[in-house]
Amino acid sequence: MKFSKFFIPTLREAPGDAAIVSHKLMMRSGMIRKLSNGLFAYLPLGLRSFRKVEAIVRQEMDAVGSLEVKPTVVVPGELWKESGRWDSMGDALLRVKNRLDVDFVVSPTAEEAFTSLVRDELSSYKQLPLNFYQINTKYRDEIRPRYGVMRGREFVMKDAYSFHADNAVDGSGESLDDTYQAMGGAYRRIFKRCGLTVIPVKADSGAMGGSGSEEFMVESEIGDNTLLLCPSCGYAANVEKASCKPDYQSGAEQIEVGQPAAAVGGAYEEAKTAALPPPELIDTPAVKTIDELCAFLKADAKTFIKTLVYRAVNVELDLSGAPHTYLKLEQKRLAPEAPPVYPQAFFAVCIRGDLAVNEVKLASLLKAGEVALASDSDVERITGAPVGFAGPVGLTSVPVIADETAAAIAGGGICGGLKKDKHFTNVAFGRDWTPWLISDVRTVVAGDKCPVCGGALYEKKGNELGHIFKLGKKYTSSMRVSFLDAAGKTQMPTMGCYGIGLDRTLASVIEEHHDDAGIIWPASIAPFHVVVIPVKYEGAAAACCDELEAGLSARGLDVLLDDRNERAGVKFNDADLIGIPWRIVVGDKNLGANPPQVEIKNRREKESRLVEKSKAAALIADYIAEEVSGGKG
Amino acid sequence: MKFSKFFIPTLREAPGDAAIVSHKLMMRSGMIRKLSNGLFAYLPLGLRSFRKVEAIVRQEMDAVGSLEVKPTVVVPGELWKESGRWDSMGDALLRVKNRLDVDFVVSPTAEEAFTSLVRDELSSYKQLPLNFYQINTKYRDEIRPRYGVMRGREFVMKDAYSFHADNAVDGSGESLDDTYQAMGGAYRRIFKRCGLTVIPVKADSGAMGGSGSEEFMVESEIGDNTLLLCPSCGYAANVEKASCKPDYQSGAEQIEVGQPAAAVGGAYEEAKTAALPPPELIDTPAVKTIDELCAFLKADAKTFIKTLVYRAVNVELDLSGAPHTYLKLEQKRLAPEAPPVYPQAFFAVCIRGDLAVNEVKLASLLKAGEVALASDSDVERITGAPVGFAGPVGLTSVPVIADETAAAIAGGGICGGLKKDKHFTNVAFGRDWTPWLISDVRTVVAGDKCPVCGGALYEKKGNELGHIFKLGKKYTSSMRVSFLDAAGKTQMPTMGCYGIGLDRTLASVIEEHHDDAGIIWPASIAPFHVVVIPVKYEGAAAACCDELEAGLSARGLDVLLDDRNERAGVKFNDADLIGIPWRIVVGDKNLGANPPQVEIKNRREKESRLVEKSKAAALIADYIAEEVSGGKG
Repeated sequence: MKFSKFFIPTLREAPGDAAIVSHKLMMRSGMIRKLSNGLFAYLPLGLRSFRKVEAIVRQEMDAVGSLEVKPTVVVPGELWKESGRWDSMGDALLRVKNRLDVDFVVSPTAEEAFTSLVRDELSSYKQLPLNFYQINTKYRDEIRPRYGVMRGREFVMKDAYSFHADNAVDGSGESLDDTYQAMGGAYRRIFKRCGLTVIPVKADSGAMGGSGSEEFMVESEIGDNTLLLCPSCGYAANVEKASCKPDYQSGAEQIEVGQPAAAVGGAYEEAKTAALPPPELIDTPAVKTIDELCAFLKADAKTFIKTLVYRAVNVELDLSGAPHTYLKLEQKRLAPEAPPVYPQAFFAVCIRGDLAVNEVKLASLLKAGEVALASDSDVERITGAPVGFAGPVGLTSVPVIADETAAAIAGGGICGGLKKDKHFTNVAFGRDWTPWLISDVRTVVAGDKCPVCGGALYEKKGNELGHIFKLGKKYTSSMRVSFLDAAGKTQMPTMGCYGIGLDRTLASVIEEHHDDAGIIWPASIAPFHVVVIPVKYEGAAAACCDELEAGLSARGLDVLLDDRNERAGVKFNDADLIGIPWRIVVGDKNLGANPPQVEIKNRREKESRLVEKSKAAALIADYIAEEVSGGKG
Repeated sequence: MKFSKFFIPTLREAPGDAAIVSHKLMMRSGMIRKLSNGLFAYLPLGLRSFRKVEAIVRQEMDAVGSLEVKPTVVVPGELWKESGRWDSMGDALLRVKNRLDVDFVVSPTAEEAFTSLVRDELSSYKQLPLNFYQINTKYRDEIRPRYGVMRGREFVMKDAYSFHADNAVDGSGESLDDTYQAMGGAYRRIFKRCGLTVIPVKADSGAMGGSGSEEFMVESEIGDNTLLLCPSCGYAANVEKASCKPDYQSGAEQIEVGQPAAAVGGAYEEAKTAALPPPELIDTPAVKTIDELCAFLKADAKTFIKTLVYRAVNVELDLSGAPHTYLKLEQKRLAPEAPPVYPQAFFAVCIRGDLAVNEVKLASLLKAGEVALASDSDVERITGAPVGFAGPVGLTSVPVIADETAAAIAGGGICGGLKKDKHFTNVAFGRDWTPWLISDVRTVVAGDKCPVCGGALYEKKGNELGHIFKLGKKYTSSMRVSFLDAAGKTQMPTMGCYGIGLDRTLASVIEEHHDDAGIIWPASIAPFHVVVIPVKYEGAAAACCDELEAGLSARGLDVLLDDRNERAGVKFNDADLIGIPWRIVVGDKNLGANPPQVEIKNRREKESRLVEKSKAAALIADYIAEEVSGGKG
């Protein structure tokens, strides 16, 4: 491709709204242009790299047997109403009414469309497993789109959905677990081939439902995820899901996390209450915060049983055995075949005074659509006191959930007294209060102990590029998908879903591979593998350039020939900015040597070197092949 | 690809709403499934052919130097307001408001997006010409989507837009004419490679503005276009634009079509009025239609000057010299840089009594956004009489436009008398009436004479697959795109646009290539080139099938291996239904021959034949290569 026939409008300066390296360099190198906030057009140069990422994703999906399909981008709102997400998805879902007043959605993701397709085709277990993917336009109505294509409103996602008769690993390669593992492998190969260093982390599957998921993160200062990483053993988790080893002593290991507390209460009673006086209700006038209380009582925050009241929406967890006098709990179904949920329920959550509750963990524990702190008036009605005096002793209006750190407070804890300006001291777990559930709902922070090896965790910000989920039967139940098993019995398939953001992957490669002069593309997704630059495109040099272009193209390489009538320095700068892995400079002087020579240089290296003109194409083709196959391995 | 690992849900019967062959066969062969009215998902089989069409289109666009870009599918409404199409496009434009109450459009076409991109980048004539294309999702909110993907709401279009400094053919290859010709050539190659017989026809460019356009049609019973074709010379035109040789005598050839009539009136006067008595106003009581009038006067409809009053909207034609007393004509601009238009104007159109006015030609003549018959009350106010008595004699309230057939009526015409129940006889063109314009606004019908050779035209229904336009400066003026020419003067670029519907192209191939058993794919876009069918997939036959699959794949062919445990007849029927060009049947009996043999059969032929197993792959590869390269030629 001749530069003069292509279109690379490079810029000296990035526009003012470009805050991160990839956004700046994609604008400066003429890869993209902004159409509107969060809407970007790929120009020819950018699209070449984009298509190469797309091709890698397609190859790896095909290699694990996922079959490509293409549903529409605009899909019937009806399907989203069936799944319940028409209501639950919020304003990021772009809803459209057409001229006939029918509801549509500009797809942000496609669980509904794929589930609907499979529902219409599936009848027998013999058809399973099914594994389909698409590479297609998506739209999320971000309020504040930022960072170029890293967080745009419209983007392209590869999303795959698999359907299985069961979830057990039976060696057949057909279970959800098998496909989940295979897709995870494909994801690792995709990112490796793109030259990306990803951190696979355990993630919470949040509102998606199901169990088991893995996020593929890249480190990024502007990442919207916080990761907890262990320097010793490689443990990595999203803060939403991260756990840690307890940093407390004395019997704490006996707590069975995630179990009803009644069974373990007895053991604590014996261990801790032997020498402890009974709880004492003391005056704590004008004390509002935990810090003030600690100062007032001269106590450590770690002895305080912080108690927070939460309101949860659409709770799927069975509450039939839970103490609960505040509201009458009634269940309903969000969709005909969906499991019943409590539209609203309240909970008191106890945690050690120096720690914070992780609402994502709490929502996951409750299988709730949403959790948030209860309103002041609800807190007053539930605890009988203004906000600030909640505590588990004598609290029966709502179920009490104890983070394991609250259950482990030894030697007499402090908690709110359920009366204005009153607190209890000498509170013993198991003797004075017994929660309905003990669980891990703590927000892990840097310095906490790695749950695997005990090393000190550290934090990083990360951006999610891909995500694989075991979705379970959330959609197949709400949208009523069924098949007959070998015994002729009606069953619901279980589902997995698997996504990669292509634009974000591309931008992340630039974040990882650049220097002050511009982008440094890995050969696998470089828009061109080689740029041929004549000092002047005329005479023998022009003939040599044409010959090199032909020779390189014949070897399957993508070649840019910079035939512009510009100074060599301008051409070098543009080549560095747009990040082409190899550069060949053709000048009369070196061509005049015997044998004729040209200068080659790798974008990552400072120095160029002379090679025989007749050997240059083969040499560079070898280098590129080596790099690309290395990425595949 | 093994059939058991693929997904081809064939159907014995097409669903009831499938009315045309391509829709039926795409459903039955498992190529597509319906998500909702006008919204179809491509399943793996259908997508394979779709991607091959896409690849052919991409190759041919690249070959003529068009550069691929990718704007978004959802684009700012603001751009459509700039061009004026936000208002003029009607309800087929899917408009969306996002959460911030900003207007967006789900693109039905992309003149605005491309013009906006170029506007931001263009400064100098040295950058021109520019020629960009995209292959991307489009949406048109059809009220009654029908015929499967032939007329869906969401579809994929390749749309290209070129920008030029000028329109003159100067041998540089850079003018709009040059690119228009090159794109036309690419379109012909695309359709040929897809195995399609297209009819390139002159078309009216309608509301798109500009001059010069060509539509690529396929014959179709359900086509929404009427084509006039000449059996002798190959002339082909859309009825909207079709012209014909006059079927009248005596001086008619002297009329200069499209010219103000004053200049030609004199010639007519002499030729026709010598022996004619003056017009006579006669009573025609209770006569409503032309047929009744003809019966009443015992006259031929060809002597009647039918006069119709039209209302036109947004008329760009300069009316400053036109007689016009009905309304005060005021101009306005639809967009800041757009040419001024008359928001509303009325015209009387005269045509020979046996013919019909072509409203598209009329709109094109007037450069109007829309034309329609005036309301009864407007007609009464304009003609001074109820509907049915309009005529050009003495009519001064609106400009009179004469179709050339009305101007050519010799020997005393008949027309409405501008009074209830009155008509004029003995009317002579040039003596008794002179129109403001003479033009061709006639609807050509089968039997009219070919404008090129005089042969009798015939009609066909056609579907438009592609369309190339010389857009001119419609968008570059309304959206204010400019550049500096070599002399440093500000100029507006001129534009061309070029579209192909990919889904419709694919469906049209099936319309042209099928039989009672199913689809008959051209090799170029067949989902698989060869299907290998074992009578039973076991033992030596299975080994032979695997070997054939490997050999064919190594030769670059796409192979389907039908490893299902089904009767051979079922597999043959499915292979015929999904239309794979070549079939290889592997059975123990033929394998036992010396040398071992297999049976090969072309989908178009009835008979199979035996070939040596070891030669089958090479033989079929040769046949396919021959067919594909033939299509390219």
